[in-house]
Amino acid sequence: MNYQSAIYSEYLSDSGMLKLVSDNALIKKMLQFEIALAAAQASVGLIPADAASEIKNVLTQLVINPADLSAGTLQNGIPVITLLELAKEKLSVNAKKYLHYGATSQDVMDTAHVLMTRDAIGLIEERVSGVMQQFTQLINKYGDIVCMARTRWQQAIPITFGVKVNAWLQPLQRQLQRLAEIKNRLLVVQLGGAAGTLSHYPDKATELRDALAKELGLQSMAQWHTQRDNICEFTNWLAMLTGVFGKMGADILIMAQSEVNEVVENAEGGGKSSAMPHKSNPVLSEALVAIAKMNAGLQSQILSGMVHVNERDASAWILEWNAIPQMLINTGTCLNHALTIAIKMKVNTEQMKNKVNQFLKNNPGK
Amino acid sequence: MNYQSAIYSEYLSDSGMLKLVSDNALIKKMLQFEIALAAAQASVGLIPADAASEIKNVLTQLVINPADLSAGTLQNGIPVITLLELAKEKLSVNAKKYLHYGATSQDVMDTAHVLMTRDAIGLIEERVSGVMQQFTQLINKYGDIVCMARTRWQQAIPITFGVKVNAWLQPLQRQLQRLAEIKNRLLVVQLGGAAGTLSHYPDKATELRDALAKELGLQSMAQWHTQRDNICEFTNWLAMLTGVFGKMGADILIMAQSEVNEVVENAEGGGKSSAMPHKSNPVLSEALVAIAKMNAGLQSQILSGMVHVNERDASAWILEWNAIPQMLINTGTCLNHALTIAIKMKVNTEQMKNKVNQFLKNNPGK
Amino acid sequence: MNYQSAIYSEYLSDSGMLKLVSDNALIKKMLQFEIALAAAQASVGLIPADAASEIKNVLTQLVINPADLSAGTLQNGIPVITLLELAKEKLSVNAKKYLHYGATSQDVMDTAHVLMTRDAIGLIEERVSGVMQQFTQLINKYGDIVCMARTRWQQAIPITFGVKVNAWLQPLQRQLQRLAEIKNRLLVVQLGGAAGTLSHYPDKATELRDALAKELGLQSMAQWHTQRDNICEFTNWLAMLTGVFGKMGADILIMAQSEVNEVVENAEGGGKSSAMPHKSNPVLSEALVAIAKMNAGLQSQILSGMVHVNERDASAWILEWNAIPQMLINTGTCLNHALTIAIKMKVNTEQMKNKVNQFLKNNPGK
Amino acid sequence: MNYQSAIYSEYLSDSGMLKLVSDNALIKKMLQFEIALAAAQASVGLIPADAASEIKNVLTQLVINPADLSAGTLQNGIPVITLLELAKEKLSVNAKKYLHYGATSQDVMDTAHVLMTRDAIGLIEERVSGVMQQFTQLINKYGDIVCMARTRWQQAIPITFGVKVNAWLQPLQRQLQRLAEIKNRLLVVQLGGAAGTLSHYPDKATELRDALAKELGLQSMAQWHTQRDNICEFTNWLAMLTGVFGKMGADILIMAQSEVNEVVENAEGGGKSSAMPHKSNPVLSEALVAIAKMNAGLQSQILSGMVHVNERDASAWILEWNAIPQMLINTGTCLNHALTIAIKMKVNTEQMKNKVNQFLKNNPGK
Repeated sequence: MNYQSAIYSEYLSDSGMLKLVSDNALIKKMLQFEIALAAAQASVGLIPADAASEIKNVLTQLVINPADLSAGTLQNGIPVITLLELAKEKLSVNAKKYLHYGATSQDVMDTAHVLMTRDAIGLIEERVSGVMQQFTQLINKYGDIVCMARTRWQQAIPITFGVKVNAWLQPLQRQLQRLAEIKNRLLVVQLGGAAGTLSHYPDKATELRDALAKELGLQSMAQWHTQRDNICEFTNWLAMLTGVFGKMGADILIMAQSEVNEVVENAEGGGKSSAMPHKSNPVLSEALVAIAKMNAGLQSQILSGMVHVNERDASAWILEWNAIPQMLINTGTCLNHALTIAIKMKVNTEQMKNKVNQFLKNNPGK
Repeated sequence: MNYQSAIYSEYLSDSGMLKLVSDNALIKKMLQFEIALAAAQASVGLIPADAASEIKNVLTQLVINPADLSAGTLQNGIPVITLLELAKEKLSVNAKKYLHYGATSQDVMDTAHVLMTRDAIGLIEERVSGVMQQFTQLINKYGDIVCMARTRWQQAIPITFGVKVNAWLQPLQRQLQRLAEIKNRLLVVQLGGAAGTLSHYPDKATELRDALAKELGLQSMAQWHTQRDNICEFTNWLAMLTGVFGKMGADILIMAQSEVNEVVENAEGGGKSSAMPHKSNPVLSEALVAIAKMNAGLQSQILSGMVHVNERDASAWILEWNAIPQMLINTGTCLNHALTIAIKMKVNTEQMKNKVNQFLKNNPGK
Repeated sequence: MNYQSAIYSEYLSDSGMLKLVSDNALIKKMLQFEIALAAAQASVGLIPADAASEIKNVLTQLVINPADLSAGTLQNGIPVITLLELAKEKLSVNAKKYLHYGATSQDVMDTAHVLMTRDAIGLIEERVSGVMQQFTQLINKYGDIVCMARTRWQQAIPITFGVKVNAWLQPLQRQLQRLAEIKNRLLVVQLGGAAGTLSHYPDKATELRDALAKELGLQSMAQWHTQRDNICEFTNWLAMLTGVFGKMGADILIMAQSEVNEVVENAEGGGKSSAMPHKSNPVLSEALVAIAKMNAGLQSQILSGMVHVNERDASAWILEWNAIPQMLINTGTCLNHALTIAIKMKVNTEQMKNKVNQFLKNNPGK
Repeated sequence: MNYQSAIYSEYLSDSGMLKLVSDNALIKKMLQFEIALAAAQASVGLIPADAASEIKNVLTQLVINPADLSAGTLQNGIPVITLLELAKEKLSVNAKKYLHYGATSQDVMDTAHVLMTRDAIGLIEERVSGVMQQFTQLINKYGDIVCMARTRWQQAIPITFGVKVNAWLQPLQRQLQRLAEIKNRLLVVQLGGAAGTLSHYPDKATELRDALAKELGLQSMAQWHTQRDNICEFTNWLAMLTGVFGKMGADILIMAQSEVNEVVENAEGGGKSSAMPHKSNPVLSEALVAIAKMNAGLQSQILSGMVHVNERDASAWILEWNAIPQMLINTGTCLNHALTIAIKMKVNTEQMKNKVNQFLKNNPGK
């Protein structure tokens, strides 16, 4: 994993999403977990209130350089150990022993990832909403324009342009419905302790978990260290979302072909060529198609990570660390490009009508 | 596609599910669609009642040999044309013209697939329920037995065997919740006509679609020829389900190792070796792991099929024809094996306890 | 796995290849291994010549019904045990003890698969050669026809149709070169015994393996029970081959579009529509594209099977049993369709020229 | 794409390889292509020698900030246009018109990627050689130690530790043989011009291509804009390589289990746990397994990119831009970890022997 390019940072990436899945975001969320855990533990009487208070004060201020976690992550296969060491350096002897009390690395990591995902979902929802509005405007403006349907790569019969845009819009409506259902299962706290049993405080396990969830604004749920279904469900949702935009991109590539010319991807001018100045390439649509394939492939990685052996298995877990940020970035990129296209696309209504007329002339009675 | 083996028909396949996704099932469901379409069309006044009645009588009796559709499917890239030709041979001149009236091949195929999927879901639900009962019995019987947790492939701390079985059971509970949500979107009729607009009877489109849905016991929904999200959502559900059993299989492979010996996959005797008579191999668990990977891979195919170009695109659609039956068969196979294991597994409670005692001796204070 | 359909047996399958990867082929090759093993063992003095002779006579005549291996395969996770039991029923007490002497199930299975693959390669080579001849004829006939290049989905500059066909032909030439290299590594005998060490006859291991290889016309090679690289290399070759035809299919879909009309997939008439009699769909090209994606996905399964744990691991090995036959059938299907297209395709040379002239008119100086 | 993390920069990435696939490397190689192209064109008399000379002088000095290519890449779907604009700013009017003369963006990009890949192969060869040496040392030191074979997750019969290490070493030997064959096809120049025909200088096409290849130390080959087989072959080689190390990692995870204890991944101490100070986790082996799965998944992306439509298709091409750097980084990471393990692994020879003795006691006569 770990390939990043400034060159492609706008065409094949999304700085807004990148920030939400960055090292700094992960560190902030991990610290947020430890602060909330201490607060919750104080609230149920497991640790002294002043320790929780100190943990909050110190960790809120704490600045950790991601690179300082690198060697420790190589050593331990997880960044949490080193993060806690760095945090403990700033804590009093008293508070130190209550940091991360009874928790395990996976509690921190999984909950931090959930918190990051919640932020990412916020961004996605906002953008999906924006894209849907543009699609609706396209329908309002051009929905009744007749144009040729194409089935199995051949002209079929006349339909309207509204049918085409609805094929992009309607799945998004269902996606929102799905997301509402998925969030209930996804935005949950992870707290299991060393092996899922919260063995340090078995009597207070549920009470503590509920308190922690409340602190973080998440749902409470029994530990799910090795139960990765909620994640798979969400990443498939991401892959479906980019699949919708992949279809949109493919439709535009077809309609924007020189011989078809029913739409122009970007009315302000498309991609230029180093060899052919006359060209205007639908480069965003190409990216939409490619990214849909990337996310489709990554979902298979996430699913294969469900075979998560024993009570913790990083050979499966790492697949998520690699794939989820990429899938989110891919999704963010798709949403940006879909919005650009929806706003800037030129719809050649005359060409659409001409093609229909030509078809009707050649196929009287259709 | 199209590899079938009698040799592996029980180990890596499932005759129960195979029947539900067979050629004969597909033919039956396609005929069922045409019967229901005619009935619905008669009910809304689009075709004469006697034509609908004849279509019902003739198609109910009609026996079509799958092999007779083969050449036509090669020619047309779809079996529907030939199926309709064979049906028309048996119909009167009057009824013939009302068969498949205003519908398109994809309406037949997609609805037939939905009907097949409904049957498959019935079988899956029944088996999931059976497996969950067995898991519950395992928990009732052995849930409190202490045993070692293993995190990152190393002994961690003592937990109970109940924690392990719950890691298989709890995702199934969520799977049932998901399935209830998914069914609302999945079990829908497909009816769009040539290019999605029901251009033969635009004024009666919605009324007809509702009537057809009612005939078939499905939900009504606007045509979704190129909107494959509901399918992707369901196949991901299948892949998550086999993922759960892949984790179960992997756990058993680990616990059944000669040196660990906490469980025996099949108390009645496991797989034999041609070279080593002393062996008893956990061959069902191996299959569970392998099948989870197969379905994870196939989901990526289904997702890439979301890039379904124009108003119909068999280069995408075929991916579903290939992957969905396989995913269902894989799922059926997993459920069979998981049930066998859950019933026949031997839990070596003494060995579990011994390991915990040994661990506690070596790690006092844990 | 294990989905087969008579309906799609010509469109999405290939009866010629199916036969070579069938149950009967597997059984025949497994028996061939046992016969050759006994012969080789007799030749190096490990077993009596008359035992080898009886094994040859009996196993050559032996007819095994694939379904009779099903229950045993479920029990043992491999068909070999039951196959040997059935064979032993027909052997004398003397010969019986020398059947499969010192070998393990994987020796039989892997060598049988290699023998099946050799036959499959023969078929593939023959068909690739036929396709290449047709491509060469296309180039001879139409290679100099000017037509539009399309880059990034837009008209670029004029090229010739020969450039397009060469993009399909040249990779095939490299494929043949690769295949020659791969065969040296792939067409090898597997003989390791229970755990790879031929522990029953360590002193004669190499001599026996060489003799067995000679009997079967394969190369000799140290056991490779868990070294699946040669297989991955070959299946990737298959996926590259179907990738070439996927590109060909996609090119034809583009060129055969109603608006482009530079080629017609099948001059004798393409796929019909149940709703639109005027249509002629390029359904073979759609299949080429779909199958390329299937094989691309399956290669990822084969590669993930390289993580083959310990000295034998069916959770990895099964992935090959599932994917290899499918990839071969997919390849055979692609070759059939590519040949049909290459023979029957209509090249609209006038349309190609007209488009170029139109382009040159609009883009003077190009 | 485009996820990078400093946190995981040593555990799941490789700074050495990252540098070779970085933006700066790409920019440098693109400039190297333009310099070599001008030199080759001067050598065959297509452009004036002084223009080539100026291009060399200016571009050798030119420093381009990757971020300055970002907006242009979004606009054009490729960084080359902007790169050339920045270069032209520094060139005289005379030299400017000979920069990139008759070439197309894909010529630059593909050749630059080949040059980057050549560097990457150099690094890989060096590391593979180092790993092979360590494996050989392990065999020299511990090759004759008896230990238990495990087939289908159960103890089989005694073998030697040398058999296990050879299962990692022998595929690497074949990998080197393959690489020698692959390099002949992979390390080739790309030069086709706008649509593959070098239409600016058709008479000098071959001569120029040969001269360019010579300048760059590559093989000459007809343009392969849409023929991606050589790339697929190489990336599959990468995936096979990480597959070998995935198997190594999985073997070590099994042998290092608390109950088996035949090896310790790192004799100096393994991964620590935030909750369980007694643990020593084999975290590098986990990464080896995970990375093998990542590369297996990415190969399917590369293969699906073979369906490269028309004469250039970024919806396919982008899949390579995303996957190849990741696959190289994954490979580099695997090689680092495999070397670390091979050097630092503790082999518990006594434990191996004890297990064998125990097995022989329980299974007399084996």
